[in-house]
Amino acid sequence: MLMNRKKIVSPFAPLEIVDLPKLSGVSHATDCCNIKQSELDIALVIFDKPAYVAGVFTNSETSSAPVVWCKSIIKKGIARGLVVNSGNANAFTGYTGTKNVIAKTALISRILDCRADEIFVASTGVIGEQLPIENILNAIPNLIESVSQGDWLNFAEAIKTTDTYSKLYSIKFNIDNKDYFLNGIAKGSGMISPNMGTLLGFFFTDAEIPSEILDYHLKSINLETFNAITVDGDSSTSDTLLLFSTGCGPSHEAFEGPFDSRLNGFVEALKELMLNLSQQVVKDGEGASKFITIKVLNAHSNDSARHIAITVAKSPLVKTAIAGEDPNWGRIAMAIGNAQQSIDKNKLKIYFGDILVTKNGMVNDEYLEEKASKYLKSKEVLIKIDIGQGSGSFTAWTCDFTEQYVKINSDYRS
Amino acid sequence: MLMNRKKIVSPFAPLEIVDLPKLSGVSHATDCCNIKQSELDIALVIFDKPAYVAGVFTNSETSSAPVVWCKSIIKKGIARGLVVNSGNANAFTGYTGTKNVIAKTALISRILDCRADEIFVASTGVIGEQLPIENILNAIPNLIESVSQGDWLNFAEAIKTTDTYSKLYSIKFNIDNKDYFLNGIAKGSGMISPNMGTLLGFFFTDAEIPSEILDYHLKSINLETFNAITVDGDSSTSDTLLLFSTGCGPSHEAFEGPFDSRLNGFVEALKELMLNLSQQVVKDGEGASKFITIKVLNAHSNDSARHIAITVAKSPLVKTAIAGEDPNWGRIAMAIGNAQQSIDKNKLKIYFGDILVTKNGMVNDEYLEEKASKYLKSKEVLIKIDIGQGSGSFTAWTCDFTEQYVKINSDYRS
Repeated sequence: MLMNRKKIVSPFAPLEIVDLPKLSGVSHATDCCNIKQSELDIALVIFDKPAYVAGVFTNSETSSAPVVWCKSIIKKGIARGLVVNSGNANAFTGYTGTKNVIAKTALISRILDCRADEIFVASTGVIGEQLPIENILNAIPNLIESVSQGDWLNFAEAIKTTDTYSKLYSIKFNIDNKDYFLNGIAKGSGMISPNMGTLLGFFFTDAEIPSEILDYHLKSINLETFNAITVDGDSSTSDTLLLFSTGCGPSHEAFEGPFDSRLNGFVEALKELMLNLSQQVVKDGEGASKFITIKVLNAHSNDSARHIAITVAKSPLVKTAIAGEDPNWGRIAMAIGNAQQSIDKNKLKIYFGDILVTKNGMVNDEYLEEKASKYLKSKEVLIKIDIGQGSGSFTAWTCDFTEQYVKINSDYRS
Repeated sequence: MLMNRKKIVSPFAPLEIVDLPKLSGVSHATDCCNIKQSELDIALVIFDKPAYVAGVFTNSETSSAPVVWCKSIIKKGIARGLVVNSGNANAFTGYTGTKNVIAKTALISRILDCRADEIFVASTGVIGEQLPIENILNAIPNLIESVSQGDWLNFAEAIKTTDTYSKLYSIKFNIDNKDYFLNGIAKGSGMISPNMGTLLGFFFTDAEIPSEILDYHLKSINLETFNAITVDGDSSTSDTLLLFSTGCGPSHEAFEGPFDSRLNGFVEALKELMLNLSQQVVKDGEGASKFITIKVLNAHSNDSARHIAITVAKSPLVKTAIAGEDPNWGRIAMAIGNAQQSIDKNKLKIYFGDILVTKNGMVNDEYLEEKASKYLKSKEVLIKIDIGQGSGSFTAWTCDFTEQYVKINSDYRS
């Protein structure tokens, strides 16, 4: 019922994790509800005043009760609170699962004196088991009483499952020469594949950005960040990204729309935050020992480049070769072929880093396997694929596929 | 450059492999050309008279030189010979790779006094390295001189790569109350996923069945056999299935077309042979410890059922759970959701064997995890998925995903 903790920590785990700055308008608290044994497993967020919100969610046909709930309330674009638990996904839990979501949102909205459809819910963990709802309902009043603006570390800690480290990021940006903050936390390690949100991520800014604008930028940046990563090709039932704007920072004029140039600082900050957090997720991929960037250039279109990059990123044979530090580029050629995009083998170039491996449909005369082997010993590996046929490009990120991945996933629940 | 042999033999390896009966009109010989160190690595087949032939091949955009060759000559439907090597796929080998195919077919056709476009070629093994073509050309005359009707065991042995056992099958069938044989061999263990041929398979009958009829039945049966298996979701550059009819068995009247009821015996035999050999491939999946059948019932259509079955069969999280004998059915629900077929969770039923796990969108009241755990201890596991919405069905086969898979593939070439 309970998930064990990974004994092996990702080689990419930061040596020190620094707390994020306080962010006006948002407070939170965490607790242990015994979903996970004696670990933080619940986080509650309250907004001082109604916040704007946008979200992206899993496309899964078996999405969890919290995802169904969030999808049903996101259009309104207003958030007063958010409750997240780890250890249990509340997915495939039937009518009881839905009732448990309603029980939580009803209780929180009653205490906060707001509408239930302003309370967002996310759950992550084992699929198919019922939440210990009494524990959670008992904990909520205390959580609400104890919220504060600090301690993002505990918030990030409370939403972890098989993650080996907490994932946080903060960046400052400018609107009209005034400073604003963008804070974000994320979790995810397995069941990660590009298909909408792909995990849990919660992002907060103190600028005042209406939900339609948040929505536009969240979705477009998502395509090149969280939707560009894969650990195991399995998409979760629970993937949820939420972006909140509290409007409690310094006051500024309203925006004309998503393309208002005064938003440029925010858009760049959001891109940096989402790129950083999505890469943190890959770097903590279950069993990962290498961080792999797959950069596809000069494809027929960006979409074609994306298909190729993702197919290579998902290939178990490519990922096991990198794990073994084996420059077995034939497997990359195989995976490119499987993407079912029209390719001219003779124009295709495959690189490890800057090392040109193939040209003219065969191995490059000057290619030295020893050099490639040496290159693959580094923790971060770039596979560059030049299709040589157009101007489409896409970059995907993944990790290698190790025995440790299998070990973690054959006894996840035991 | 050379592939090492698996030390661990599949738990499904047969205790004894029996040779196939002789088959009129086809002879073969094997040799070692030093592509693999001191192991059989080349097989040559000669037909006494021109045989009818049909084939299915990989869809890969980076298909190997032999696949390109076979695709270009298959329409003619006539075969005089076949040469197969293991240890090197002759894929991604540029113009040299093509020249090496031509050199082989030219030499064989010259000795046999036939046309080069009647000589079929297949290669399997490492991608991206050139064949030791001189060794092969030197071996061919001796191979042609030494062919005989017996010893299918060596033929099957010579085409293996990471396979832990040779895969052979034979079945007798009737046309007009006369006996005919259907013999087949196959190879494949990694880089196996449903996308056309999926590996190497060569099937032979002594009945006289024109290539258009062979083609029809090979392709339709392929969809439910070799195209219904997956080991790792990676499709090879080299997948090739060829079905030959020598016409050297007892004489019989010609057939009216693919639906002539006098062909029923042959069609049933071909189905049994291809089902058996495709399942042998899965049972020898790299690192496999369990043979998993995924049976999807009552889907909107057969195609929808197929998508669901294959998505579950490919899910690393489902496959690692089965490896760990963990009845983590939530991962099956997750994978079903990822197939992007419209599903009503409340109508969906998931079974381990006969054990009903879910109904009404949640776990079945009477489900006992201990019972499911016990069931998963068996070597062969059935996952039954009743969609409850139509009459479409599809069955897929796969193996579990073990640490051994990763071990094999991180040092395949070293």
